[in-house]
Amino acid sequence: MTHYRLEIRVRPRPGLLDPQGKAVHNSLVALGWEGVHDVRVGKAILIDMEAESAAAAREAAEAMCRKLLANPVTEDYEVVSAEALEGAGS
Amino acid sequence: MTHYRLEIRVRPRPGLLDPQGKAVHNSLVALGWEGVHDVRVGKAILIDMEAESAAAAREAAEAMCRKLLANPVTEDYEVVSAEALEGAGS
Repeated sequence: MTHYRLEIRVRPRPGLLDPQGKAVHNSLVALGWEGVHDVRVGKAILIDMEAESAAAAREAAEAMCRKLLANPVTEDYEVVSAEALEGAGS
Repeated sequence: MTHYRLEIRVRPRPGLLDPQGKAVHNSLVALGWEGVHDVRVGKAILIDMEAESAAAAREAAEAMCRKLLANPVTEDYEVVSAEALEGAGS
């Protein structure tokens, strides 16, 4: 078993309302950044786990997104990277 | 002025408590992913804005992080990319 660090991004789907993004957008404009057209706020999730291979780690991450991390109706997810942590003890 | 898409990542600092990450970690273990050692949950922010250059867009993004997007005491931020959107109308 090898230690992997998985990076996952979960984002509100294009076209769907993103109230948090809207609030940040309004605040940025109020602070003077009037060139800002749009803001979307999603989640950046980092998972450290044991797996047999990078492919197995990615597969586990996809399953985690489907089961827990992302709302399939309103959010898109992407497993950005699965990096082996060599010699990591924890 | 060119249209840029900025990608920003905001993360709880290493060593600081991350209650959301802890909750996700516990849920993943309860769902059977016992190889998971650690989970950290941060924000993935996408900003569309007008700027003179990619450097100016990145500089604006750094200022936004310092002023609004990240809590400097508990979070680290990174401007992951500043990509020019050619021919984009909106």
